[in-house]
Amino acid sequence: MKVRNLLGERLKDVSDESGVKSQILMTKGGYMKPVGSGIYSFYMPTQRISRKIQKILREEMDAIDGQEVLFPVVMPASLWQSSGRYTSIGSEMARWNDRSGNPMVLGMTHEEAAVHLADHTAKSHAQYPFMIYQIQTKFRDEPRARGGLIRVREFTMKDAYSFHTSQADLEAYYDKAYVAYERIFRRAGAKNVIAVKSDSGMMGGKISHEFMLLADIGEDTLVICPECDYRANMEVADCIINNPDEAESPLTKVATPTQKTIEEVCAFLGRKHDSTAKAVVYQENDTDKYVIVFLRGDLEVNETKLRNYLKKEIHPATEILPDSGIVAGFIGAYNLKANATIVYDKSLVGKKDLVIGANEVGYHYVGFNPERDLETKPEYVDVAKTAEGGICPVCGKPVLNIRRGIEVGNIFQLGDKYTKSMGMTYLDADNTEKYPIMGCYGIGVGRLIASICEESHDDYGPIWPMSIAPWQVEVCNLRVTDEKVKATAEKLVSDLESKGVEVLYDDREVRPGFMFADADLFGIPVRAVVSQKTCERGVVEVSTRDKTLKTEFSLQTASEEIASLVKKMLDELNN
Amino acid sequence: MKVRNLLGERLKDVSDESGVKSQILMTKGGYMKPVGSGIYSFYMPTQRISRKIQKILREEMDAIDGQEVLFPVVMPASLWQSSGRYTSIGSEMARWNDRSGNPMVLGMTHEEAAVHLADHTAKSHAQYPFMIYQIQTKFRDEPRARGGLIRVREFTMKDAYSFHTSQADLEAYYDKAYVAYERIFRRAGAKNVIAVKSDSGMMGGKISHEFMLLADIGEDTLVICPECDYRANMEVADCIINNPDEAESPLTKVATPTQKTIEEVCAFLGRKHDSTAKAVVYQENDTDKYVIVFLRGDLEVNETKLRNYLKKEIHPATEILPDSGIVAGFIGAYNLKANATIVYDKSLVGKKDLVIGANEVGYHYVGFNPERDLETKPEYVDVAKTAEGGICPVCGKPVLNIRRGIEVGNIFQLGDKYTKSMGMTYLDADNTEKYPIMGCYGIGVGRLIASICEESHDDYGPIWPMSIAPWQVEVCNLRVTDEKVKATAEKLVSDLESKGVEVLYDDREVRPGFMFADADLFGIPVRAVVSQKTCERGVVEVSTRDKTLKTEFSLQTASEEIASLVKKMLDELNN
Repeated sequence: MKVRNLLGERLKDVSDESGVKSQILMTKGGYMKPVGSGIYSFYMPTQRISRKIQKILREEMDAIDGQEVLFPVVMPASLWQSSGRYTSIGSEMARWNDRSGNPMVLGMTHEEAAVHLADHTAKSHAQYPFMIYQIQTKFRDEPRARGGLIRVREFTMKDAYSFHTSQADLEAYYDKAYVAYERIFRRAGAKNVIAVKSDSGMMGGKISHEFMLLADIGEDTLVICPECDYRANMEVADCIINNPDEAESPLTKVATPTQKTIEEVCAFLGRKHDSTAKAVVYQENDTDKYVIVFLRGDLEVNETKLRNYLKKEIHPATEILPDSGIVAGFIGAYNLKANATIVYDKSLVGKKDLVIGANEVGYHYVGFNPERDLETKPEYVDVAKTAEGGICPVCGKPVLNIRRGIEVGNIFQLGDKYTKSMGMTYLDADNTEKYPIMGCYGIGVGRLIASICEESHDDYGPIWPMSIAPWQVEVCNLRVTDEKVKATAEKLVSDLESKGVEVLYDDREVRPGFMFADADLFGIPVRAVVSQKTCERGVVEVSTRDKTLKTEFSLQTASEEIASLVKKMLDELNN
Repeated sequence: MKVRNLLGERLKDVSDESGVKSQILMTKGGYMKPVGSGIYSFYMPTQRISRKIQKILREEMDAIDGQEVLFPVVMPASLWQSSGRYTSIGSEMARWNDRSGNPMVLGMTHEEAAVHLADHTAKSHAQYPFMIYQIQTKFRDEPRARGGLIRVREFTMKDAYSFHTSQADLEAYYDKAYVAYERIFRRAGAKNVIAVKSDSGMMGGKISHEFMLLADIGEDTLVICPECDYRANMEVADCIINNPDEAESPLTKVATPTQKTIEEVCAFLGRKHDSTAKAVVYQENDTDKYVIVFLRGDLEVNETKLRNYLKKEIHPATEILPDSGIVAGFIGAYNLKANATIVYDKSLVGKKDLVIGANEVGYHYVGFNPERDLETKPEYVDVAKTAEGGICPVCGKPVLNIRRGIEVGNIFQLGDKYTKSMGMTYLDADNTEKYPIMGCYGIGVGRLIASICEESHDDYGPIWPMSIAPWQVEVCNLRVTDEKVKATAEKLVSDLESKGVEVLYDDREVRPGFMFADADLFGIPVRAVVSQKTCERGVVEVSTRDKTLKTEFSLQTASEEIASLVKKMLDELNN
């Protein structure tokens, strides 16, 4: 391919509002063009990267006995009604009526379609287990598409669905999928991907893992133990608090005339944050009923854990009604007369001398001991966020790291949520009808491309790993008007191509600086420069995009040496 | 792949309402499952066929300098408003509002997206020509999906768009695309595909060709000259009529008290159909205004040609109003007082003694001579359908054949319809801004699969061409419980696979008749049978699905011989 014929424009500057490097560099490099919010068209280089990733995905899915199938993008609403998700999923699902007035949806995931395809065809236990997968376009009407390909509305995704006759069989397969995922990311050249325990969200099921590429711009917060194997999404990470033994004090009301926030109250009373019990007020989405969470004053509420505990959708309280019994700024667990669900976080266990609000404007209590002072013994639940240096729930060491990550893949143990709701059964060996149990396994192609760019770039452009680079070698001809240089460069291109090397050839009559700036944006891993000077000396200048190699090869052997360099760089990723 | 693990059910019987063999056989064979009207999920065999066709499409598009890109399925309505097609296309386009209330559409074709992607990046004439293509899901809300994959609502399509600076350059590229299309169909094993001149319909532009696979169930009517190169869709085929010289007669009113139809009038008056001028009444869709077509009584109106002549959408008249001046059953061109557009077909040229209606109940005229009897000389246009044995507009011989075909591909010269309406320009060598001119080129993958099945099957199942078969060889093990047979069959499978041959292996404990019936439905081109008997004799029974070969290979050489048979069958399609 010649750069002069390649559609797509390299831009000098793009606006940098997002701070997402992959978006900036891929926009500058002519990889994509926005068609609408979170909707892109892709130029040839991106499509080549995408197809290479798809090839890796297919090979690894086939290697764990996957059968590639295809589900439709457009589905009748009735299919989603059969699982109950037509109502349980909100406005992120695109809905419309076809010309006959039938309600339709656009697929944002395909559990229902997978059960529909397998139903009636896997009737005997002997046909299990099996896994089906597809690579298909999906649409999810994200409220805030952001960061280029990191969070879009339309995307290409590999999604896989496995069917089993026992939890043990699902778990064995889940482990195989886990390993396949590790291989996929390694082969694609993503270096900093870790698997974390995660929340199953709208997918249902209990056990799930997210594969997270560590990056500061990531939307997810990860909890990582450097001392053991523990890794979890903050959303589900246990918060372990071992409060030191402390002396009791009498419960005493104190005037705090203008002190409302934790900071103000602590400063006024000379206490530390961790000797207070702060109150955070939420409301149930459906009923507006208040939910008050009490937790140690130095901690934050983990809303996902709170939601999972309540089994209800909630949001931070938007308004405290005067007749609610809630006195904002002075809320305390003692003598609280409010029509609200009260939740005590585990961080209060063992506390005997807490500062709390007095449910009265201008007053707090000190010396609050929940076990002693509350009429009903509180039930403590874990709804707090753990923090940097927090205690690892597995090895118990106070060494937790908090990092940011981009979710590049996920795997779920779904159980029988979908087969049961949709009535799919098989005949088991004991002659009874049973519901198969399922796993599902997703990787978004575009987000993986952007994530790899996020971790593999410099100021001048992406540094694509050899396995997914749009081309393997870029040949730069610095003097196309010179017949000898032209002939030399073109022979190098055709020698490389005859060896199966993918070459991007730049023979435009432009300044070397301009050509190299474009080459940096193309991010091709190996660059070969042919100029008058190199021709005179009988060599080709060869360097790698990541700057770890800069050398010269003799013209006689250049194509062999470059081809073996390419092979070596590929092998490093495949092994 | 083992049949025992393959998801998808072979059915004994399926209802046969459509009469479309590919639908019946592919449904019986477990190739697909309907999810909604015209919406399918596809099992592994179909997806493998599809991917092989996609590979051929990519190779042939790349060979004519195509750049693979990707456009989105979901597009903002504004993109389609910019070309004017948001209003000109009707309810076949799926429309909906996203969560923010923005009107969106699902892509049914991607001219607008192609112009959007190329705009601003191809600013200089030096960057032309170029071609971009994608393979992507499309949705077209067909009112009547039918015939399985022949006419669906959701489909996978290869669509390509070329951009040029001159009509001559477009035409030269169009010819290359034409040849590429011939190669694609040949390589995919479609034998009876012909290119016909066609109507450009909603695409705009002037010159276009459809690639038609000849099949009785086809929705299109084709006009083919066996004596020269002339091939056209009936919709655009010229109807050439050379009326023999005939004597004049006086215009005479005759009573036809109960005779209204051409048949009745001809029988009553002892005339032939071709000596009458029949009237066919249409109405304009917008205004209900009548359009009356007069043509020779033995011919039919070609509504596409009529529509193109009028530049208006029309439909057969649903009601003749009493005050319209139209006397149904007695309409004639002489003394006609009707508020209608009158169209005279060319088939009336030279007629001097026609039977026509007298615009009066119970009467006709004989001896009508348009040139003599009409006050205003009529303008004749060609709006008639040609017929079997009609005159070829190119070589002039009265030998035309009328056949049915399935449209498996199309190519269009679009001109500047899209670049002009969307304001895409480039700077030409003469320093003026100009609109690029475009061509577009489509092939639907699913319809091609079904069409090939339509021409390549027997009563028992599809006969897939080697190039697109889901697997190349099926190995049938007739006695899996016999250790020696099992070992022999498994060695054959692994020997074949190590030679790169794709094998479907059936080792189920089922009756041979059952296994062979399934094998017929899989349609794998080469079958190798291993049984106790063949093992004892040291051979493998090898046959082709099309029954042209049935032989035995020695066990020692079977894998080599089968592999070379596969290669030979592949080569036959690729050359």
